[in-house]
Amino acid sequence: MAGEGVKLLGYWGSPFALRVRSALKLKGIEYEYQEEDLGNKSPLLLQSNPVYKKIPVLLHNGKSISESLVILEYIDEVWKHNPLLPEDPYERARSRFWAKFVDEKCVPALVGTISKVGEELEKGAREAREHLKTLESGLDGKRCFGGTKIGFADVAIAWVAYLARMEQEALKIQLIDQQNMPVLAAWIDYVLEDPVMKELMPPHDKVFKHMIDMREKLIAIVSN
Amino acid sequence: MAGEGVKLLGYWGSPFALRVRSALKLKGIEYEYQEEDLGNKSPLLLQSNPVYKKIPVLLHNGKSISESLVILEYIDEVWKHNPLLPEDPYERARSRFWAKFVDEKCVPALVGTISKVGEELEKGAREAREHLKTLESGLDGKRCFGGTKIGFADVAIAWVAYLARMEQEALKIQLIDQQNMPVLAAWIDYVLEDPVMKELMPPHDKVFKHMIDMREKLIAIVSN
Repeated sequence: MAGEGVKLLGYWGSPFALRVRSALKLKGIEYEYQEEDLGNKSPLLLQSNPVYKKIPVLLHNGKSISESLVILEYIDEVWKHNPLLPEDPYERARSRFWAKFVDEKCVPALVGTISKVGEELEKGAREAREHLKTLESGLDGKRCFGGTKIGFADVAIAWVAYLARMEQEALKIQLIDQQNMPVLAAWIDYVLEDPVMKELMPPHDKVFKHMIDMREKLIAIVSN
Repeated sequence: MAGEGVKLLGYWGSPFALRVRSALKLKGIEYEYQEEDLGNKSPLLLQSNPVYKKIPVLLHNGKSISESLVILEYIDEVWKHNPLLPEDPYERARSRFWAKFVDEKCVPALVGTISKVGEELEKGAREAREHLKTLESGLDGKRCFGGTKIGFADVAIAWVAYLARMEQEALKIQLIDQQNMPVLAAWIDYVLEDPVMKELMPPHDKVFKHMIDMREKLIAIVSN
Protein backbone atom coordinates (compact mmCIF):
# COMPACT_ATOMS: atom_id res chain seq x y z
CA MET A 1 0.00 0.00 0.00
CA ALA A 2 1.31 3.43 -0.95
CA GLY A 3 2.14 5.50 2.11
CA GLU A 4 1.71 8.85 0.34
CA GLY A 5 5.05 10.30 1.37
CA VAL A 6 5.55 8.51 4.68
CA LYS A 7 8.95 8.82 6.32
CA LEU A 8 10.15 7.55 9.67
CA LEU A 9 13.08 8.91 11.65
CA GLY A 10 14.32 6.13 13.89
CA TYR A 11 17.21 4.32 15.53
CA TRP A 12 17.84 0.61 15.00
CA GLY A 13 17.96 -0.34 18.68
CA SER A 14 15.07 1.79 19.95
CA PRO A 15 12.00 -0.14 21.11
CA PHE A 16 9.99 3.03 20.46
CA ALA A 17 11.06 3.20 16.81
CA LEU A 18 10.51 -0.57 16.48
CA ARG A 19 6.92 -0.08 17.66
CA VAL A 20 6.25 2.26 14.77
CA ARG A 21 8.08 0.09 12.23
CA SER A 22 6.02 -2.93 13.37
CA ALA A 23 2.77 -0.99 13.04
CA LEU A 24 3.63 0.25 9.54
CA LYS A 25 4.70 -3.27 8.54
CA LEU A 26 1.57 -4.92 9.98
CA LYS A 27 -0.50 -2.50 7.90
CA GLY A 28 1.72 -2.99 4.85
CA ILE A 29 2.45 0.71 4.51
CA GLU A 30 5.46 1.62 2.40
CA TYR A 31 7.72 4.20 3.98
CA GLU A 32 11.13 5.73 3.76
CA TYR A 33 13.30 5.04 6.78
CA GLN A 34 15.96 7.44 8.01
CA GLU A 35 18.37 6.08 10.59
CA GLU A 36 19.43 8.77 13.07
CA ASP A 37 22.83 9.17 14.67
CA LEU A 38 21.67 9.96 18.21
CA GLY A 39 24.96 11.68 18.99
CA ASN A 40 24.52 13.97 16.01
CA LYS A 41 20.83 14.31 15.26
CA SER A 42 19.72 15.42 11.82
CA PRO A 43 18.34 18.93 11.31
CA LEU A 44 15.12 17.22 10.15
CA LEU A 45 14.72 15.46 13.52
CA LEU A 46 15.47 18.60 15.54
CA GLN A 47 13.05 20.59 13.47
CA SER A 48 10.23 18.04 13.36
CA ASN A 49 10.27 17.22 17.09
CA PRO A 50 11.35 20.50 18.70
CA VAL A 51 9.81 19.58 22.07
CA TYR A 52 11.67 16.33 22.79
CA LYS A 53 14.20 16.19 19.93
CA LYS A 54 13.79 12.41 20.07
CA ILE A 55 13.03 9.58 17.69
CA PRO A 56 10.70 8.16 16.51
CA VAL A 57 9.14 10.86 14.37
CA LEU A 58 6.67 10.01 11.64
CA LEU A 59 6.48 12.44 8.73
CA HIS A 60 3.34 12.25 6.66
CA ASN A 61 1.94 14.71 4.15
CA GLY A 62 4.33 17.42 5.35
CA LYS A 63 3.32 17.00 9.00
CA SER A 64 5.29 15.42 11.84
CA ILE A 65 3.99 13.23 14.64
CA SER A 66 6.07 12.39 17.71
CA GLU A 67 5.77 10.04 20.70
CA SER A 68 5.52 6.39 19.71
CA LEU A 69 2.11 5.64 21.25
CA VAL A 70 0.66 8.79 19.68
CA ILE A 71 2.13 7.69 16.35
CA LEU A 72 0.54 4.23 16.68
CA GLU A 73 -2.89 5.83 17.22
CA TYR A 74 -2.29 8.09 14.21
CA ILE A 75 -1.33 5.17 11.97
CA ASP A 76 -4.42 3.24 13.08
CA GLU A 77 -6.67 6.21 12.30
CA VAL A 78 -5.19 7.13 8.92
CA TRP A 79 -4.89 3.58 7.55
CA LYS A 80 -7.94 1.79 8.91
CA HIS A 81 -7.30 -1.69 7.46
CA ASN A 82 -5.74 -4.35 9.74
CA PRO A 83 -6.71 -2.37 12.84
CA LEU A 84 -4.16 -2.30 15.66
CA LEU A 85 -6.63 -1.39 18.39
CA PRO A 86 -9.53 -3.75 19.12
CA GLU A 87 -13.03 -2.56 18.19
CA ASP A 88 -14.60 -2.62 21.64
CA PRO A 89 -14.02 0.60 23.66
CA TYR A 90 -13.26 -1.30 26.85
CA GLU A 91 -10.70 -3.50 25.11
CA ARG A 92 -9.20 -0.40 23.52
CA ALA A 93 -8.90 1.16 26.98
CA ARG A 94 -7.17 -2.00 28.25
CA SER A 95 -4.68 -1.88 25.38
CA ARG A 96 -3.91 1.78 26.05
CA PHE A 97 -3.64 1.16 29.80
CA TRP A 98 -1.02 -1.59 29.45
CA ALA A 99 1.00 0.24 26.80
CA LYS A 100 1.10 3.26 29.12
CA PHE A 101 1.98 1.06 32.10
CA VAL A 102 5.01 -0.29 30.26
CA ASP A 103 6.29 3.20 29.51
CA GLU A 104 5.64 4.52 33.00
CA LYS A 105 6.80 1.58 35.08
CA CYS A 106 8.71 -1.09 33.15
CA VAL A 107 10.88 1.11 30.91
CA PRO A 108 12.28 3.32 33.72
CA ALA A 109 12.96 0.26 35.92
CA LEU A 110 14.71 -1.61 33.09
CA VAL A 111 16.75 1.41 31.98
CA GLY A 112 17.66 2.26 35.59
CA THR A 113 18.98 -1.26 36.18
CA ILE A 114 21.46 -1.20 33.28
CA SER A 115 23.98 0.92 35.17
CA LYS A 116 23.66 -0.88 38.53
CA VAL A 117 26.15 -3.26 40.16
CA GLY A 118 26.16 -5.55 43.19
CA GLU A 119 23.26 -5.15 45.61
CA GLU A 120 21.86 -2.23 43.65
CA LEU A 121 21.68 -4.43 40.57
CA GLU A 122 19.72 -7.04 42.51
CA LYS A 123 17.39 -4.35 43.84
CA GLY A 124 16.86 -2.88 40.37
CA ALA A 125 16.17 -6.30 38.88
CA ARG A 126 13.68 -7.05 41.66
CA GLU A 127 11.81 -3.81 40.99
CA ALA A 128 11.73 -4.46 37.25
CA ARG A 129 10.51 -8.01 37.89
CA GLU A 130 7.65 -6.72 40.05
CA HIS A 131 6.47 -4.40 37.27
CA LEU A 132 6.82 -7.14 34.65
CA LYS A 133 4.80 -9.47 36.88
CA THR A 134 2.06 -6.84 37.07
CA LEU A 135 2.25 -6.49 33.30
CA GLU A 136 1.79 -10.25 32.96
CA SER A 137 -1.56 -9.96 34.74
CA GLY A 138 -2.72 -7.80 31.81
CA LEU A 139 -2.72 -10.84 29.53
CA ASP A 140 -5.52 -12.23 31.66
CA GLY A 141 -5.72 -15.61 29.95
CA LYS A 142 -5.61 -14.12 26.43
CA ARG A 143 -3.08 -15.02 23.76
CA CYS A 144 -2.21 -11.35 23.16
CA PHE A 145 -2.80 -8.05 24.90
CA GLY A 146 -5.05 -7.21 21.97
CA GLY A 147 -7.03 -10.47 22.30
CA THR A 148 -6.35 -13.12 19.67
CA LYS A 149 -4.13 -11.18 17.28
CA ILE A 150 -1.11 -8.93 17.58
CA GLY A 151 -2.20 -5.32 18.00
CA PHE A 152 -1.50 -1.92 19.58
CA ALA A 153 -0.44 -3.09 23.05
CA ASP A 154 1.47 -6.07 21.67
CA VAL A 155 3.72 -4.03 19.38
CA ALA A 156 4.08 -1.41 22.14
CA ILE A 157 5.12 -3.96 24.75
CA ALA A 158 6.94 -6.63 22.72
CA TRP A 159 10.08 -4.63 21.97
CA VAL A 160 10.44 -3.56 25.59
CA ALA A 161 10.01 -7.19 26.66
CA TYR A 162 12.54 -8.25 24.02
CA LEU A 163 15.09 -5.78 25.38
CA ALA A 164 14.31 -6.94 28.92
CA ARG A 165 15.31 -10.44 27.81
CA MET A 166 18.53 -9.12 26.28
CA GLU A 167 19.22 -7.24 29.51
CA GLN A 168 18.63 -10.46 31.45
CA GLU A 169 21.20 -12.22 29.31
CA ALA A 170 23.77 -9.41 29.25
CA LEU A 171 23.59 -8.58 32.96
CA LYS A 172 23.05 -12.18 34.10
CA ILE A 173 19.97 -11.25 36.12
CA GLN A 174 16.52 -12.76 36.29
CA LEU A 175 13.80 -10.73 34.58
CA ILE A 176 11.42 -12.67 32.35
CA ASP A 177 11.83 -16.41 32.07
CA GLN A 178 9.80 -19.55 31.79
CA GLN A 179 10.02 -20.17 35.50
CA ASN A 180 8.98 -16.90 37.10
CA MET A 181 6.75 -15.46 34.34
CA PRO A 182 5.56 -18.33 32.17
CA VAL A 183 2.60 -16.45 30.68
CA LEU A 184 4.58 -13.35 29.72
CA ALA A 185 7.47 -15.51 28.44
CA ALA A 186 5.11 -17.54 26.24
CA TRP A 187 3.52 -14.34 24.95
CA ILE A 188 6.90 -12.81 23.95
CA ASP A 189 7.89 -16.02 22.17
CA TYR A 190 4.58 -15.99 20.30
CA VAL A 191 4.73 -12.31 19.30
CA LEU A 192 8.37 -12.36 18.25
CA GLU A 193 7.73 -15.44 16.11
CA ASP A 194 5.32 -13.41 13.99
CA PRO A 195 6.93 -12.97 10.54
CA VAL A 196 6.53 -9.16 10.67
CA MET A 197 8.16 -8.89 14.07
CA LYS A 198 10.85 -11.43 13.23
CA GLU A 199 11.86 -9.51 10.14
CA LEU A 200 12.35 -6.33 12.16
CA MET A 201 14.33 -7.93 14.96
CA PRO A 202 17.81 -6.42 15.29
CA PRO A 203 20.71 -8.91 15.21
CA HIS A 204 21.17 -10.60 18.61
CA ASP A 205 24.91 -9.99 18.89
CA LYS A 206 24.59 -6.33 17.93
CA VAL A 207 21.96 -5.71 20.64
CA PHE A 208 23.99 -7.69 23.19
CA LYS A 209 27.14 -5.67 22.47
CA HIS A 210 25.16 -2.40 22.50
CA MET A 211 23.78 -3.24 25.94
CA ILE A 212 27.19 -4.11 27.37
CA ASP A 213 28.70 -0.92 25.87
CA MET A 214 25.88 1.20 27.24
CA ARG A 215 26.29 -0.42 30.68
CA GLU A 216 30.03 0.28 30.72
CA LYS A 217 29.55 3.88 29.67
CA LEU A 218 26.83 4.46 32.25
CA ILE A 219 28.84 2.84 35.04
CA ALA A 220 31.81 5.04 34.12
CA ILE A 221 29.61 8.15 34.32
CA VAL A 222 28.01 7.12 37.64
CA SER A 223 31.33 6.24 39.30
CA ASN A 224 33.07 9.45 38.24
CA MET B 1 -28.42 11.37 28.66
CA ALA B 2 -28.60 8.14 30.63
CA GLY B 3 -25.14 6.85 31.51
CA GLU B 4 -26.27 3.19 31.89
CA GLY B 5 -24.77 2.64 35.31
CA VAL B 6 -21.85 5.03 35.15
CA LYS B 7 -19.96 5.67 38.37
CA LEU B 8 -16.85 7.72 38.99
CA LEU B 9 -14.46 7.33 41.90
CA GLY B 10 -12.72 10.66 42.41
CA TYR B 11 -11.27 13.23 44.75
CA TRP B 12 -12.45 16.85 44.76
CA GLY B 13 -9.01 18.44 44.36
CA SER B 14 -7.57 16.05 41.77
CA PRO B 15 -7.01 17.54 38.32
CA PHE B 16 -7.15 13.97 36.96
CA ALA B 17 -10.63 13.36 38.39
CA LEU B 18 -11.70 16.83 37.23
CA ARG B 19 -10.69 15.89 33.68
CA VAL B 20 -13.11 12.99 33.72
CA ARG B 21 -15.89 14.99 35.39
CA SER B 22 -15.49 17.71 32.72
CA ALA B 23 -15.66 15.16 29.92
CA LEU B 24 -18.79 13.49 31.31
CA LYS B 25 -20.38 16.91 31.84
CA LEU B 26 -19.49 18.17 28.34
CA LYS B 27 -21.18 15.07 26.96
CA GLY B 28 -24.13 15.44 29.32
CA ILE B 29 -23.70 11.93 30.76
CA GLU B 30 -25.41 11.26 34.07
CA TYR B 31 -23.21 9.47 36.58
CA GLU B 32 -22.90 8.62 40.22
CA TYR B 33 -19.95 10.25 41.92
CA GLN B 34 -18.11 8.67 44.83
CA GLU B 35 -15.68 10.89 46.69
CA GLU B 36 -12.67 8.93 47.95
CA ASP B 37 -10.80 9.49 51.20
CA LEU B 38 -7.25 9.14 49.85
CA GLY B 39 -5.96 8.26 53.31
CA ASN B 40 -8.46 5.42 53.58
CA LYS B 41 -9.37 4.25 50.08
CA SER B 42 -12.61 2.35 49.54
CA PRO B 43 -12.52 -1.40 48.86
CA LEU B 44 -14.19 -0.57 45.53
CA LEU B 45 -11.25 1.65 44.49
CA LEU B 46 -8.62 -0.89 45.57
CA GLN B 47 -10.43 -3.64 43.76
CA SER B 48 -11.20 -1.74 40.57
CA ASN B 49 -7.71 -0.26 40.09
CA PRO B 50 -5.43 -2.95 41.56
CA VAL B 51 -2.41 -1.76 39.55
CA TYR B 52 -2.21 1.86 40.73
CA LYS B 53 -4.88 1.99 43.48
CA LYS B 54 -5.48 5.58 42.39
CA ILE B 55 -8.42 7.74 41.39
CA PRO B 56 -9.99 8.45 38.97
CA VAL B 57 -11.68 5.17 38.12
CA LEU B 58 -14.68 5.03 35.82
CA LEU B 59 -17.05 2.14 36.36
CA HIS B 60 -19.33 1.33 33.44
CA ASN B 61 -21.40 -1.77 32.75
CA GLY B 62 -19.56 -3.69 35.45
CA LYS B 63 -16.12 -2.84 34.04
CA SER B 64 -13.53 -0.43 35.40
CA ILE B 65 -11.29 1.93 33.46
CA SER B 66 -8.30 3.70 35.04
CA GLU B 67 -5.84 6.44 34.03
CA SER B 68 -7.53 9.72 33.25
CA LEU B 69 -6.39 10.07 29.62
CA VAL B 70 -7.41 6.48 28.91
CA ILE B 71 -10.79 7.23 30.49
CA LEU B 72 -11.24 10.32 28.29
CA GLU B 73 -10.61 8.21 25.16
CA TYR B 74 -13.09 5.62 26.44
CA ILE B 75 -15.79 8.22 27.09
CA ASP B 76 -15.27 9.70 23.62
CA GLU B 77 -15.61 6.26 22.02
CA VAL B 78 -18.64 5.05 23.96
CA TRP B 79 -20.63 8.28 23.75
CA LYS B 80 -19.85 9.67 20.33
CA HIS B 81 -21.89 12.90 20.47
CA ASN B 82 -20.09 16.16 21.32
CA PRO B 83 -16.72 14.63 20.41
CA LEU B 84 -13.79 15.54 22.62
CA LEU B 85 -11.09 14.68 20.10
CA PRO B 86 -11.03 16.52 16.76
CA GLU B 87 -11.95 14.55 13.65
CA ASP B 88 -8.67 14.91 11.76
CA PRO B 89 -6.05 12.26 12.69
CA TYR B 90 -3.24 14.81 12.77
CA GLU B 91 -5.20 17.12 15.07
CA ARG B 92 -6.07 14.12 17.26
CA ALA B 93 -2.35 13.30 17.47
CA ARG B 94 -1.62 16.90 18.48
CA SER B 95 -4.24 16.75 21.24
CA ARG B 96 -2.82 13.49 22.58
CA PHE B 97 0.74 14.81 22.35
CA TRP B 98 0.05 17.89 24.47
CA ALA B 99 -2.07 16.06 27.04
CA LYS B 100 0.80 13.57 27.44
CA PHE B 101 3.35 16.39 27.61
CA VAL B 102 1.48 17.96 30.53
CA ASP B 103 1.50 14.69 32.48
CA GLU B 104 5.12 13.91 31.72
CA LYS B 105 6.68 17.34 32.13
CA CYS B 106 4.40 19.96 33.71
CA VAL B 107 2.77 17.86 36.46
CA PRO B 108 6.05 16.48 37.94
CA ALA B 109 7.64 19.96 37.84
CA LEU B 110 4.63 21.59 39.50
CA VAL B 111 4.26 18.89 42.16
CA GLY B 112 8.01 18.87 42.84
CA THR B 113 8.01 22.62 43.43
CA ILE B 114 5.33 22.54 46.17
CA SER B 115 7.76 21.31 48.83
CA LYS B 116 10.67 23.56 47.85
CA VAL B 117 11.96 26.64 49.71
CA GLY B 118 14.50 29.39 49.01
CA GLU B 119 16.75 28.91 46.02
CA GLU B 120 15.32 25.45 45.33
CA LEU B 121 11.87 26.99 45.08
CA GLU B 122 13.12 29.47 42.51
CA LYS B 123 14.79 26.67 40.57
CA GLY B 124 11.65 24.52 40.67
CA ALA B 125 9.48 27.42 39.53
CA ARG B 126 11.90 28.16 36.69
CA GLU B 127 11.77 24.57 35.47
CA ALA B 128 7.96 24.48 35.67
CA ARG B 129 7.84 27.80 33.77
CA GLU B 130 9.99 26.39 31.00
CA HIS B 131 7.66 23.44 30.53
CA LEU B 132 4.59 25.68 30.65
CA LYS B 133 6.18 27.94 28.04
CA THR B 134 6.70 24.90 25.78
CA LEU B 135 3.10 23.93 26.41
CA GLU B 136 2.00 27.42 25.35
CA SER B 137 3.58 26.80 21.93
CA GLY B 138 1.05 23.98 21.48
CA LEU B 139 -1.76 26.52 21.16
CA ASP B 140 -0.12 27.70 17.96
CA GLY B 141 -2.47 30.61 17.34
CA LYS B 142 -5.61 28.58 18.06
CA ARG B 143 -8.23 29.46 20.64
CA CYS B 144 -8.06 25.97 22.20
CA PHE B 145 -5.74 22.99 22.02
CA GLY B 146 -8.61 21.21 20.28
CA GLY B 147 -9.05 24.02 17.71
CA THR B 148 -12.08 26.26 18.16
CA LYS B 149 -13.90 24.40 20.93
CA ILE B 150 -12.99 22.86 24.26
CA GLY B 151 -11.95 19.24 23.79
CA PHE B 152 -9.71 16.39 24.92
CA ALA B 153 -6.47 18.31 25.41
CA ASP B 154 -8.27 21.33 26.89
CA VAL B 155 -9.97 19.39 29.68
CA ALA B 156 -6.75 17.41 30.22
CA ILE B 157 -4.61 20.53 30.54
CA ALA B 158 -7.00 23.10 32.04
CA TRP B 159 -7.14 21.64 35.55
CA VAL B 160 -3.38 21.31 35.72
CA ALA B 161 -3.06 24.93 34.56
CA TYR B 162 -5.69 25.97 37.11
CA LEU B 163 -3.71 24.32 39.92
CA ALA B 164 -0.51 25.92 38.59
CA ARG B 165 -2.21 29.28 39.06
CA MET B 166 -3.24 28.36 42.60
CA GLU B 167 0.34 27.26 43.28
CA GLN B 168 1.56 30.57 41.93
CA GLU B 169 -0.70 32.39 44.37
CA ALA B 170 -0.04 30.16 47.39
CA LEU B 171 3.73 30.00 46.99
CA LYS B 172 4.12 33.55 45.69
CA ILE B 173 6.06 32.43 42.64
CA GLN B 174 5.73 33.26 38.98
CA LEU B 175 4.28 30.47 36.84
CA ILE B 176 1.57 31.50 34.39
CA ASP B 177 0.61 35.12 34.14
CA GLN B 178 -0.42 37.72 31.65
CA GLN B 179 3.12 39.03 31.39
CA ASN B 180 5.24 35.93 30.79
CA MET B 181 2.68 33.64 29.13
CA PRO B 182 -0.07 35.81 27.67
CA VAL B 183 -1.36 33.16 25.25
CA LEU B 184 -1.58 30.38 27.84
CA ALA B 185 -3.05 32.78 30.41
CA ALA B 186 -5.77 33.90 27.96
CA TRP B 187 -6.52 30.28 27.12
CA ILE B 188 -6.99 29.27 30.78
CA ASP B 189 -9.27 32.26 31.35
CA TYR B 190 -11.31 31.25 28.32
CA VAL B 191 -11.58 27.56 29.21
CA LEU B 192 -12.38 28.10 32.87
CA GLU B 193 -15.10 30.59 31.92
CA ASP B 194 -16.94 27.80 30.11
CA PRO B 195 -20.13 27.05 32.12
CA VAL B 196 -19.30 23.32 32.40
CA MET B 197 -15.80 23.98 33.68
CA LYS B 198 -16.95 26.80 35.96
CA GLU B 199 -19.53 24.59 37.61
CA LEU B 200 -16.91 21.97 38.45
CA MET B 201 -14.34 24.40 39.81
CA PRO B 202 -13.52 23.67 43.46
CA PRO B 203 -13.88 26.62 45.87
CA HIS B 204 -10.86 28.94 45.69
CA ASP B 205 -10.23 29.11 49.44
CA LYS B 206 -10.49 25.34 49.87
CA VAL B 207 -7.88 24.74 47.13
CA PHE B 208 -5.64 27.49 48.50
CA LYS B 209 -5.74 26.03 52.03
CA HIS B 210 -5.22 22.50 50.67
CA MET B 211 -2.12 23.64 48.82
CA ILE B 212 -0.66 25.39 51.86
CA ASP B 213 -1.41 22.34 54.06
CA MET B 214 0.15 19.99 51.55
CA ARG B 215 3.23 22.24 51.31
CA GLU B 216 3.67 22.30 55.07
CA LYS B 217 3.30 18.54 55.37
CA LEU B 218 5.76 17.91 52.55
CA ILE B 219 8.33 20.37 53.94
CA ALA B 220 8.04 18.65 57.35
CA ILE B 221 8.70 15.27 55.71
CA VAL B 222 11.61 16.55 53.62
CA SER B 223 13.32 18.30 56.55
CA ASN B 224 12.98 15.33 58.89
